[in-house]
Amino acid sequence: MSTRKRVAILGSTGSIGTQALDVMQQHQDRFQVEVLTAQNNADLLIRQAMAFEPNVVVIGNEGNYEKVKQALSSYPIKVYAGEEAIAQVVEMETVDIVLTALVGYAGLMPTIKAIEAGKPIALANKETLVVAGELVTSLAKKKGVNIFPVDSEHSAIFQCLVGEFHNPIEKIILTASGGPFRGKDTGFLRKVKKEQALKHPNWDMGDKITIDSASLMNKGLEVIEAKWLFGLNASQIEVVVHPQSIIHSLVQFEDGSIKAQLGLPDMRIPIQFALSYPERLASQFPRFDFRQYPSLEFEQPDTETFRNLGLAYEALERGGNSACVLNAANEIAVAAFLKDEIGFLQMSDVIELSMQKISFIGSPTLEDLVQTDRTTRKLTKEIINSL
Amino acid sequence: MSTRKRVAILGSTGSIGTQALDVMQQHQDRFQVEVLTAQNNADLLIRQAMAFEPNVVVIGNEGNYEKVKQALSSYPIKVYAGEEAIAQVVEMETVDIVLTALVGYAGLMPTIKAIEAGKPIALANKETLVVAGELVTSLAKKKGVNIFPVDSEHSAIFQCLVGEFHNPIEKIILTASGGPFRGKDTGFLRKVKKEQALKHPNWDMGDKITIDSASLMNKGLEVIEAKWLFGLNASQIEVVVHPQSIIHSLVQFEDGSIKAQLGLPDMRIPIQFALSYPERLASQFPRFDFRQYPSLEFEQPDTETFRNLGLAYEALERGGNSACVLNAANEIAVAAFLKDEIGFLQMSDVIELSMQKISFIGSPTLEDLVQTDRTTRKLTKEIINSL
Repeated sequence: MSTRKRVAILGSTGSIGTQALDVMQQHQDRFQVEVLTAQNNADLLIRQAMAFEPNVVVIGNEGNYEKVKQALSSYPIKVYAGEEAIAQVVEMETVDIVLTALVGYAGLMPTIKAIEAGKPIALANKETLVVAGELVTSLAKKKGVNIFPVDSEHSAIFQCLVGEFHNPIEKIILTASGGPFRGKDTGFLRKVKKEQALKHPNWDMGDKITIDSASLMNKGLEVIEAKWLFGLNASQIEVVVHPQSIIHSLVQFEDGSIKAQLGLPDMRIPIQFALSYPERLASQFPRFDFRQYPSLEFEQPDTETFRNLGLAYEALERGGNSACVLNAANEIAVAAFLKDEIGFLQMSDVIELSMQKISFIGSPTLEDLVQTDRTTRKLTKEIINSL
Repeated sequence: MSTRKRVAILGSTGSIGTQALDVMQQHQDRFQVEVLTAQNNADLLIRQAMAFEPNVVVIGNEGNYEKVKQALSSYPIKVYAGEEAIAQVVEMETVDIVLTALVGYAGLMPTIKAIEAGKPIALANKETLVVAGELVTSLAKKKGVNIFPVDSEHSAIFQCLVGEFHNPIEKIILTASGGPFRGKDTGFLRKVKKEQALKHPNWDMGDKITIDSASLMNKGLEVIEAKWLFGLNASQIEVVVHPQSIIHSLVQFEDGSIKAQLGLPDMRIPIQFALSYPERLASQFPRFDFRQYPSLEFEQPDTETFRNLGLAYEALERGGNSACVLNAANEIAVAAFLKDEIGFLQMSDVIELSMQKISFIGSPTLEDLVQTDRTTRKLTKEIINSL
């Protein structure tokens, strides 16, 4: 008898992927690892495969194929390589749910393939909805596929909505830690180094999202993600800075009642809930205790200093391919910042310039978005080189 | 076509009753006032009857019957008097839900009658569950009757449990404002006057519950109420002092995730939700705004100074008729404090003494509880007179 949920983890060697495997390790009676995919990290992928014995592993970077194949030759594990294979394994009949933990734009195509195959999605790749929220959510609706959010903020909202899906949302409030540079001014920010930006006060995450957190772009992307996940308009989505990251987000209903989800910052809780919904599984994750948090603080985000949040709202209001431009420009800008090619505040400059220059498309097709992404990346690189 | 919910309000002239009528006034398309009852306040009952034109009104104090009858003689409203009538009207076929907003032990019998008649209960009378939690909840279960909590803390828990009734509760955390005497020592408390105790910092409530809030007995009664409403044991119920009264209570599930319900202190939200569940009705109640609450604070209750909370846990642990003794002794003690017969700290003394002296009954019948209540009141009065 197998009532275990068979999970495909796309991006198993990243921060979300490894924590998802931790969750599945703790609940082997409930979950079975069916597919693991990684882009480059062959060594970790091999170790994960040996430990969890999935049916299939895929290494995105084809140059690592032989290494993985060799290492797993004595295991009954199928090994594939390449982007195409990642997009194909999600369609396997033996996959019950797909956790999309890929970083950035790379998550889009596999997520669409999985939805087309009717697989429920545990979505840890917010860029999918930022780039193509309208297409993806309408496809999911058409296919009757649930998208369970993994981002802690969206999981919080989702948890608050359980049992209340029939009750209209008045607004949601996404909490933001404010990142390592909360309270800093432009004079300070102009000179910060990537090492400072990579030190998040509360969450231990991958590099891209940690920089996005420091620049408030992460919250901007989450605002756009929330719009699509919960069917809201921009005016229904607020952001409040909450340095302790205990309240993960809040929903206000039309009677004025507010519900919040909280706890210690630990991604395993939202990961697990996305996989176990509607059930909650007993777990030994460390518990929150008010004795350690006698005061929870809240303040308004400084959108003048941290311009990315405003740019994200602007993209949301404009619609069409605007958020796709925002996302592509941001991915290039973050990569350039991590290579010390541009300063922290210049990231907003190049994103804003890109948004001004790329042609607006009101109702983009998937091909339009692919093209917008490509054109934007090229343009943003040019802007960076010209600085 | 009448799809309006027909409501019987027991105790319509009190704080909860008047706020319930405010809610129903705002949602006349959804609610119809079927029955109003009051103990003594004939004038307000008459005005309410004229405004809402219920089918039936009952004045508990029979001496006021003629006055009410006379005043409403030109209205198509039936007028009854006496305790017996209050317990009977809840059985009326035209009643869809009963809001029990009576004060203290007086709420017990009508609530039992309403459950026996199969009516859903919006429970604002916590003493019903304190005195006879086991009997009342097992009767409700047998009759398939829902008990919707109105107390803000229990409503918060209930709101957090919506959609999660299948998920076990790890623990709940009831928030307490700490009342007007938070942080005070016994030297101060020994001398406080009722006028000081009657000034609650956040909630505008009736006299009895306001004194109970100042003495932490209200939180003690809520702990016992929570045990019965949510099927918990004492070790699963925590209390945290939260002076701003914004987070109304929290639930922690077995995965470690915590959900909370929050908002400005306004009893109309929980009253309305108890009446409108599972729907939420759009309302114009003032909204919570983090800009006005940049910091939410939490501290442990001072159970050495405020001994009532400990006494309540003790009654809960002992079970049987102990909580009935606690409640009866407290009602007499509060009345004596309000008449300046005993000091603030003496309330705990006489309650503790009463709990020591009344015979323990492990599995009391309703008659046992009625007897326990009566004996305790007599004893507590004697203790007070002997001081």
